[in-house]
Amino acid sequence: MLVLGIDPGTAITGFGLVKKDRKELLIDYGTITTPAGMDMPARLCKINRELTAIINKYQPDAAAVEELFYHKNSKTVITVAQARGVALMTLAAGGLPIAEYTPLQVKQAVVGYGNAEKKQVQLMVQKILNMKELPRPDDAADALAIAICHLHSVRLGRYF
Amino acid sequence: MLVLGIDPGTAITGFGLVKKDRKELLIDYGTITTPAGMDMPARLCKINRELTAIINKYQPDAAAVEELFYHKNSKTVITVAQARGVALMTLAAGGLPIAEYTPLQVKQAVVGYGNAEKKQVQLMVQKILNMKELPRPDDAADALAIAICHLHSVRLGRYF
Repeated sequence: MLVLGIDPGTAITGFGLVKKDRKELLIDYGTITTPAGMDMPARLCKINRELTAIINKYQPDAAAVEELFYHKNSKTVITVAQARGVALMTLAAGGLPIAEYTPLQVKQAVVGYGNAEKKQVQLMVQKILNMKELPRPDDAADALAIAICHLHSVRLGRYF
Repeated sequence: MLVLGIDPGTAITGFGLVKKDRKELLIDYGTITTPAGMDMPARLCKINRELTAIINKYQPDAAAVEELFYHKNSKTVITVAQARGVALMTLAAGGLPIAEYTPLQVKQAVVGYGNAEKKQVQLMVQKILNMKELPRPDDAADALAIAICHLHSVRLGRYF
């Protein structure tokens, strides 16, 4: 099973592709970036276009996206939600079933407890996926963590 | 010039098409609706699909969308922003230039003052477009008001 994890944002959308047979295997990860000078509709178009290309290239079996909460930074919640809407739409248009997880669920699944630090999550992602270095940038690391979280949930029968 | 006004929302996205040569002419208006029981990515897909169909059918010259502010109802701002992101992306993918206006600018343009009541805006939309009845529902009426606002701004040389 190949899972595409997504961490949506207007400036940077992180993606991570993790496969699981017996153990987790890193397939690819990275970011979709849009320049600050580009107008918002064009930025959202770029996210749609590049995410569609990733789906077409790797043909994942499922997608996983972190839930968005209102208590986050008020200035960015609208732009993050706009990018998140485009990401959800693009994943659904690509025929992927989409799972959503809270940040607490992601930390719980990857590190083992819900109040883990960001660095601890990245170290565990590195270890699980047998990477030589810490996954970078944060957005791509988060996307890999969400993909791993979904694979663990599927394994435990919480999903599907 | 044919303008497509959009009032985005997950449950109801209003649209209004207004043309202007010498005076404003109503072309079409209505809503894109998605059922509450449908999951969010599927709802966003439906908005993308039906908005694309409207663009293809009418081939408008420009689009206008109301700006979204954080101070609105906290429970809905994320879902409205997600739908708004999909709408902006769909309009840009359709090659339309997109103008954004604040609610104050829309009221100012349609009624003449920024603190007009919703009912006053609808009455003016009815009058300007020579409609037999008040435009309904609110989402479609808002979309028509935004389209009229854009036509007035273009006329006054504030845009393009």
